[in-house]
Amino acid sequence: MDVILIAVIVVALATIGFVAHNYYKIKRMDEGTERMSEIAEAIRIGANAFINYEYKIIAIVAAIVAGVLGVLVCWEQAVCFVLGACMSAIAGYIGMKVATYANVRVSNAARTTKKLGETLKVAFRGGSVMGLSVAAFALVGMVIIYVVFGKGLGYMEAEAIQNNATNWLGISYTPFTQCLSGYALGCSFIAMFSRIGGGIYTKAADMGADLVGKTEATIPEDDPRNPATIADNVGDNVGDVAGLGSDLLESFVGSIASAVMLGVFVVLKGANVPFEILDKLFYYPLIFVTIGLVSCVIGVLFLLIKKASENPHKELNFATWLSAGLTVVFGLVATLVIFKDVDAAVMQNMGFTLGAWSPWAAAALGVASGILIGVFAEYYTSYDYNPTRLVAHAAEDGAALTITQGMAIGMKSCMAPLFVLAGTLAIAYYTGGFFGVAMAGVGMLSFVGITVSVDTYGPISDNAGGIAEMSRLEPKVRAITDELDSVGNTTAAIGKGFAIGSAAFATLGLMISYIFSFSGEAITLENVAMNIIDPLTLAGALVGAALPYLFSGMLIDAVAKAAKKMVNEVRRQFKEKPGILTGEEKPDYRTCIEISSHGALQEMRVPAIMSIVFPLASGFLFGPWFVAGVLMGGTLSAIMLAIFTGNAGGTWDNAKKYIETGAIEGSGKGSRAHKSSVVGDTVGDPLKDTVGPSLDILIKIMSTVSLVAVPLFNQFNLISLFIK
Amino acid sequence: MDVILIAVIVVALATIGFVAHNYYKIKRMDEGTERMSEIAEAIRIGANAFINYEYKIIAIVAAIVAGVLGVLVCWEQAVCFVLGACMSAIAGYIGMKVATYANVRVSNAARTTKKLGETLKVAFRGGSVMGLSVAAFALVGMVIIYVVFGKGLGYMEAEAIQNNATNWLGISYTPFTQCLSGYALGCSFIAMFSRIGGGIYTKAADMGADLVGKTEATIPEDDPRNPATIADNVGDNVGDVAGLGSDLLESFVGSIASAVMLGVFVVLKGANVPFEILDKLFYYPLIFVTIGLVSCVIGVLFLLIKKASENPHKELNFATWLSAGLTVVFGLVATLVIFKDVDAAVMQNMGFTLGAWSPWAAAALGVASGILIGVFAEYYTSYDYNPTRLVAHAAEDGAALTITQGMAIGMKSCMAPLFVLAGTLAIAYYTGGFFGVAMAGVGMLSFVGITVSVDTYGPISDNAGGIAEMSRLEPKVRAITDELDSVGNTTAAIGKGFAIGSAAFATLGLMISYIFSFSGEAITLENVAMNIIDPLTLAGALVGAALPYLFSGMLIDAVAKAAKKMVNEVRRQFKEKPGILTGEEKPDYRTCIEISSHGALQEMRVPAIMSIVFPLASGFLFGPWFVAGVLMGGTLSAIMLAIFTGNAGGTWDNAKKYIETGAIEGSGKGSRAHKSSVVGDTVGDPLKDTVGPSLDILIKIMSTVSLVAVPLFNQFNLISLFIK
Repeated sequence: MDVILIAVIVVALATIGFVAHNYYKIKRMDEGTERMSEIAEAIRIGANAFINYEYKIIAIVAAIVAGVLGVLVCWEQAVCFVLGACMSAIAGYIGMKVATYANVRVSNAARTTKKLGETLKVAFRGGSVMGLSVAAFALVGMVIIYVVFGKGLGYMEAEAIQNNATNWLGISYTPFTQCLSGYALGCSFIAMFSRIGGGIYTKAADMGADLVGKTEATIPEDDPRNPATIADNVGDNVGDVAGLGSDLLESFVGSIASAVMLGVFVVLKGANVPFEILDKLFYYPLIFVTIGLVSCVIGVLFLLIKKASENPHKELNFATWLSAGLTVVFGLVATLVIFKDVDAAVMQNMGFTLGAWSPWAAAALGVASGILIGVFAEYYTSYDYNPTRLVAHAAEDGAALTITQGMAIGMKSCMAPLFVLAGTLAIAYYTGGFFGVAMAGVGMLSFVGITVSVDTYGPISDNAGGIAEMSRLEPKVRAITDELDSVGNTTAAIGKGFAIGSAAFATLGLMISYIFSFSGEAITLENVAMNIIDPLTLAGALVGAALPYLFSGMLIDAVAKAAKKMVNEVRRQFKEKPGILTGEEKPDYRTCIEISSHGALQEMRVPAIMSIVFPLASGFLFGPWFVAGVLMGGTLSAIMLAIFTGNAGGTWDNAKKYIETGAIEGSGKGSRAHKSSVVGDTVGDPLKDTVGPSLDILIKIMSTVSLVAVPLFNQFNLISLFIK
Repeated sequence: MDVILIAVIVVALATIGFVAHNYYKIKRMDEGTERMSEIAEAIRIGANAFINYEYKIIAIVAAIVAGVLGVLVCWEQAVCFVLGACMSAIAGYIGMKVATYANVRVSNAARTTKKLGETLKVAFRGGSVMGLSVAAFALVGMVIIYVVFGKGLGYMEAEAIQNNATNWLGISYTPFTQCLSGYALGCSFIAMFSRIGGGIYTKAADMGADLVGKTEATIPEDDPRNPATIADNVGDNVGDVAGLGSDLLESFVGSIASAVMLGVFVVLKGANVPFEILDKLFYYPLIFVTIGLVSCVIGVLFLLIKKASENPHKELNFATWLSAGLTVVFGLVATLVIFKDVDAAVMQNMGFTLGAWSPWAAAALGVASGILIGVFAEYYTSYDYNPTRLVAHAAEDGAALTITQGMAIGMKSCMAPLFVLAGTLAIAYYTGGFFGVAMAGVGMLSFVGITVSVDTYGPISDNAGGIAEMSRLEPKVRAITDELDSVGNTTAAIGKGFAIGSAAFATLGLMISYIFSFSGEAITLENVAMNIIDPLTLAGALVGAALPYLFSGMLIDAVAKAAKKMVNEVRRQFKEKPGILTGEEKPDYRTCIEISSHGALQEMRVPAIMSIVFPLASGFLFGPWFVAGVLMGGTLSAIMLAIFTGNAGGTWDNAKKYIETGAIEGSGKGSRAHKSSVVGDTVGDPLKDTVGPSLDILIKIMSTVSLVAVPLFNQFNLISLFIK
């Protein structure tokens, strides 16, 4: 089966080649006027400085974690952890880097070509670097693990997976699954810091800029007179590009890892499943996502090569549908080839009720539900639909009703995606057993390359608009970037829905793997269970359900604190240099960037550390079942809160934009309704861009940490001294 | 054991006598000036009209439900359902009635005595009618069920409990447990309509009055020129008095019923528990709450008789602590008497690890945690502490930061009470098994008489302040009622925490009973389990977790819609009769009352019906395990959301009050900070007074409905046609 790994690595490396091509293609483009170069340079320096500093902190903490893992569990896991962290960091770094080149080139394309279609291509090319890097680098790491730690590979060696090793503490563990979970943890680790740090950075800058700029000084967004405006643009790159990329890379890896682990469990713990099957279940998830990556490259190429139309929304949707469609079609062929010769009775024993089609059906369902969840997010947050228009109309009656109405919509928007998730889960299980559930997650993430490309296009266009505004380019340029940006807002909402859905599936897969991995020898596929009314488990679920709320509250506080500092700085500059507002003096952008940067790095520590320490402390105090409860309660609670905050924030943002289009009679910019909608938008900002995305990470990292540490606290925990 | 039932009924009837005494004592007091009488009369008429109309609707729906129960399950259950509905309706009616008498007499006491202590006594006497009625009427119904449907009583007849009956549909059921769940359902039923209807009424009026009055016309709260002001005062009576009373009556009954049912299961399904024990477990919860009722009567009497001090907060706290303390002490004596002669081995088999002390320890833990949860709620919402002061200071930077900061505090406030709940649950279980868990709930609710008395005192004082304002009484009077009202705000926050905590425990008890009652013959205490990673159960949990959000969103919409109508009416009156604002013309209070009333009755239907239909539809489509998932996911999600909305709303309300005290330099009434805090308060109003309390009901009624209908959908469900 070595040929499979060779194929996977060839695809991954070829994709990285394509990424490099796009990277340099972007870099070689013209930056435009001197003023544009200057602003872009400032954004780039700010972004680089932040990410370098952030990565330094991460490196230190990661070294400690790796050391602890190496000592307490096994060195293989420590190595895989570092590998995961490196892959994620590299992908995030490249993606952010190119975004800071692409932004100004998008403004320049708009300036020189005056064509929407051409400008879109530049932005999308920039986005595709992040998107394709996510899948490609994740796969490179996976192949390394398979080759180095899967050893000889093939079912003959599969017994090695079964045989537990024992470390010097007397803790028994399974090397290969520990490697997978270590790798996933490495990715989680980067994602957590990037998402939380980036999320705090971007919203501290944004809120700080808005609170003084729009509300007190009444100057428009991205106005060069606002000292916080460069920091705001830096924030888009570190939060929405690097943060999002590492978030989805984590989901991608998490879902593949859990599918592979569950594949192992199906063979080892299922009744009457021969060892030969292991090979198939082992490679199948990897093959499926490789097919997905190929499809995404085709989708990206197609959009870049074809004649540019003037409808960016249609173009992006088409690329997404094409990639998803190809993944499903190619996936079917591969699935039938792989599973065609499996005995019908074995299929039944694995829970493959549809025969060879089963794992494909589950994965295809995942693809479909990923798209569907995105569509629901669009419905609730785009101003083309009723919900957001309702919020815009509520703004006519003041800020209080704007907030109230937006909250109501955020709350109501939870049911539809959860229905999809629940349906996908149940059908995937009855189609392909627990492996089917994991494959639904893999399917949902298989076309991550294109979804992240489309998502990253948004902040690049946003930045491009900012640069156009700050460089005082002609209105036509701004009109083009505004149109791209407004599409970007919708894609961002869809992307957020997708991120939550995929995080939920990755987490469910990891959670089931967790339960399998400590439930002991007697467990089989038929009797694996998590008894939620066991008092200790239920207690865990109660506390776990409160955790996302605590975490969210802390994050909002963090943003508010950092934003407050920004507000004071902007006020100080306006006061000390009255010439700034008249355009006679230049504001000091640098101090604002430092405040955001410093605030984010300082404020991210407690929530980040909490999300690692909480499951560990729970495990060592109250044992593995309590942790299982924490994971379950936490996941249920976090999914809701993430959808609520994401959609409420999205609807407030777009309600403001709707009012700004002048669609409501008598309520344009500066009207009472507009002012109310700005309040809504400001409230929504930290919710949708800091809290929501960080919740995705919270549940993933908690389950990964638990999975990594389960051999430890399965053996040592305080409560076992008191209760049998 | 008949002597026990006689004792219970004697206590209940004696309490009702005491309630009647207080009722007439209040009624005989002087109403004060003619203007005061007139306003009180208007409030009374409005409240009566609403509750009469509401009860008419309830009666129709209840008749249908009773009919369905009688036909599909058994006539005994239908009768008990009607009994529960009647008991709850009577208690709510009396409580609300006396509140509408007491309000004006409190203003008058303040006017004539000018003494805080004397005024407090009048308000508290009024509140005690509702508080003691809750426990007394609930117990009367309980005794009737024991006598009529428990038949001969005593363990000899206990076999009747074991023998299932079969109805004409071939559905087997256990008459006595069906009677208990039917009774609980009747109480749930009234609670749901009262809480939702009352919640929408009170906040539609409040928001409507505030949005135009405070924000547009800038007249103070309760100003007689505001046409919505009487409706606002009516709202306090129908929402905060009748709604709260029926809510806690439901928790009270739910927790007793689940304890009795779990007692039955302990004997029937536990290994080696002799039948003689049934008698004890059967009566023990009833005895404990009767002791609680006696203690509450003592607490009430003590406060009414002793020399009045000038510190209302201290007085109320003392009465609560006294009642709770006496319950715990008397409870201990009773427990030891009842369980002293039980064999140690039997104790062990029942899970009573502390011997005869076990059920008492669990109940005492419940008492303590009920108080503790209230204390946390106070910490997060009272302006004596940091969190609310932070919100007040955030208001200096505008409405957006006020909202953001309040949300952060609401979110962070979830962890502490959940920690208490989780700890109580686990310790209660390891002390007294599942029966212990249910007894913790019973303990928490055993002193419901005093908590509801203290809670009801709040809206009475609030109304008294309104009447003083509208009657233009001298400032000293208003100062006294304001002081009482501000204490009332804190007690309301504590009461809300308590309501959620007790609802959570009642629901957990009901949920465990639910699982026991359909898990079949093979189940024993040792192997009862709910496998949350069973895909169908997990799918249920996912959908269930989304339900409270959908429900909350709908309720906010309902309030906003009704408030919007009120706003239009108030604007219309101000516009058509400019004399209202100058005081030359009288506003038309009646139409505003009608708008609130009509809006509430119309808007409550969909959410109320949804909370009944959702578990039923789930059960008939996807079977009992899916429903179990819905209950679990729904409960976890609803508890968080209820605490979040309750505390966020409370902190916004009190941050506004803090600013109004002038404690922040340069920010008094009318300042920018004050305006921002009014936005916060308006956003929080429907959250804390409509959404939060209704969520308590949602989880209770869903579990009660499921418990009642489980024999039906255990037998008939669609999914069983497809999956084994």
